[in-house]
Amino acid sequence: MRTVDIPVQTPYQVRIGKGILARGGELLHLVHAPCAAAVISDSNVFPLYGPTLLEGLEKAGFRAFPFVFPAGEESKNLEVFGRAEAFMIRSGLTRADLAVTLGGGVAGDLGGFAAACFQRGIPFVQFPTSLLCAVDASVGGKTAVDLPEGKNMVGAFHQPSLVVCDTGCFATLDSLRFADGAAESIKHGLIADPKLFDRMLSPAWREDLEETVEMNVLVKRSFVLGDEKDRGMRQLLNFGHTLGHAVESLSDYRLSHGQAVAIGMAAEARAARKMGFGKVHEKEILAALRACGLPSQSPFGAEEILEKALRDKKRAGNTLTVGALADIGQGFLKKLTLEEFDAFVRLGVEA
Amino acid sequence: MRTVDIPVQTPYQVRIGKGILARGGELLHLVHAPCAAAVISDSNVFPLYGPTLLEGLEKAGFRAFPFVFPAGEESKNLEVFGRAEAFMIRSGLTRADLAVTLGGGVAGDLGGFAAACFQRGIPFVQFPTSLLCAVDASVGGKTAVDLPEGKNMVGAFHQPSLVVCDTGCFATLDSLRFADGAAESIKHGLIADPKLFDRMLSPAWREDLEETVEMNVLVKRSFVLGDEKDRGMRQLLNFGHTLGHAVESLSDYRLSHGQAVAIGMAAEARAARKMGFGKVHEKEILAALRACGLPSQSPFGAEEILEKALRDKKRAGNTLTVGALADIGQGFLKKLTLEEFDAFVRLGVEA
Repeated sequence: MRTVDIPVQTPYQVRIGKGILARGGELLHLVHAPCAAAVISDSNVFPLYGPTLLEGLEKAGFRAFPFVFPAGEESKNLEVFGRAEAFMIRSGLTRADLAVTLGGGVAGDLGGFAAACFQRGIPFVQFPTSLLCAVDASVGGKTAVDLPEGKNMVGAFHQPSLVVCDTGCFATLDSLRFADGAAESIKHGLIADPKLFDRMLSPAWREDLEETVEMNVLVKRSFVLGDEKDRGMRQLLNFGHTLGHAVESLSDYRLSHGQAVAIGMAAEARAARKMGFGKVHEKEILAALRACGLPSQSPFGAEEILEKALRDKKRAGNTLTVGALADIGQGFLKKLTLEEFDAFVRLGVEA
Repeated sequence: MRTVDIPVQTPYQVRIGKGILARGGELLHLVHAPCAAAVISDSNVFPLYGPTLLEGLEKAGFRAFPFVFPAGEESKNLEVFGRAEAFMIRSGLTRADLAVTLGGGVAGDLGGFAAACFQRGIPFVQFPTSLLCAVDASVGGKTAVDLPEGKNMVGAFHQPSLVVCDTGCFATLDSLRFADGAAESIKHGLIADPKLFDRMLSPAWREDLEETVEMNVLVKRSFVLGDEKDRGMRQLLNFGHTLGHAVESLSDYRLSHGQAVAIGMAAEARAARKMGFGKVHEKEILAALRACGLPSQSPFGAEEILEKALRDKKRAGNTLTVGALADIGQGFLKKLTLEEFDAFVRLGVEA
């Protein structure tokens, strides 16, 4: 088992290992006394891993109350959020108790936000079961739900008390979901770790998933530290996401998050080349995306992407900040005026 | 105009004065550059004070977007919360903008929570227009909405950037709403300030409202400092609220918050006398409640109050903490086991 310390204001650890889900209760006991625990999971994941987790929790003295919501991004909304809150009250949870999330990004974001707001905040522990969640969403403390008006529009910064990542769970991911995690991993390589980027071009990354997850967690950690509230360099993690989120939303989530971010990275790199900022890495990026079975061409036009993206939360007043690349593994932030952003989107989307 | 500094992590000021609503934009400009501002208010308050506030905001360079919800505690729910969030997105607000709440506790709690969660948190400024909100809810950073399962069950700690309290607005409060503020003011006197308690027994408190509000803000401040997250002494502010919230909820909010807290204070003092902790102050409390036109007898029985109260968020595991009085102006916290709490409720509610 690998352990990465995340020394934020209230420090916590990310534990990574194959088969450690069964030891979840025991690991949780190291950071929290036995109490009531709402286990927030979805209808795909819970039947697979819920029983093992529950058994471990109960064995360690926790009283587990499972809340299972319908799988899918559609569930990441205020209505399901409200049902989770009501469930926790009816289960008798108090401010001395905690929430456990078991699943991918939706379970983590929704469950984490439910914990952040339940009686104004209780601790939560994350058990990511998807590669995407393990390499990205499980570190950083960003929780949220979507609105019809946009993704992650309502949320909170709420750091977990512990993350337990059982890489054995990834075995049940289909290739599409697996590629979702690869997209974020490519992004981490591009903005901060050339070795990780290289790794994603070879089969190595799939062969030792513990190492891959750890490398990603270390990149993510370097951005989160000192910028817990996402006002500075952490914005670099949005490389590929400014356009990616718009594409994802326009597709009504028929494109997966990873596919959308892949398209976003390709488009943002293309736009940067045409506008002359940063170094050209379009080819390397396209090769990595292809190697991981990810798309690179937007099915939507510049006009509609622009409209969506302008509503995106990354906008601060009359400028927008996008991520760009000085070299592989060296991202930087580029502030664009609204006019420049208009050109950025058009040049990125047009071939 | 009086100014009270609240030196929490991100310090802010409470401004108190008659007629200062019109100077709201100017005062806001001192702490925030002009930007877009969602003005969250209710259908009773907005027609009275909205135009004045909007004019001041626009004059100071802010672009104001009013969101007016139906007046009443019934609006303090997740559905209206979601509408407020969607409104802010559609109005084009970004993380560089802010929310302004104009109204009583509902506007402040709902609007503050909407600001806390909008794109994971934007600043907010509070314009309390009720005595209750001015003396209580406008300091402390507690924001929340209700669920059918209980009051303030979903919320966040989110400190305002500024509070502007125009005591001239209280002139339009009916006597019931005015008494609501008096109940919290009596409570502040009882737990921390004997002079404030004495003041509530004479007409003085109504004659110089600026002084009354300032005294309350100072008491509230003393509890909030060092305990922003409400884990320690701040719980003393819940004196009268453990039973008060239960009574308020059982009445389906036909009892006002102040009436419910008045009943709660009387019952909690009675129970403490019978159980022999703290000094007896039942008579003084009853006199103050009467002087302010507040009730003291619960229309509900011990059984139903107990059931409601046990779901209350103040419970931590298997003990409950209630406020008690060593003397007038000297509250202390008393931890009760569930068995003791059972007796506490029964002895408090029975005459």
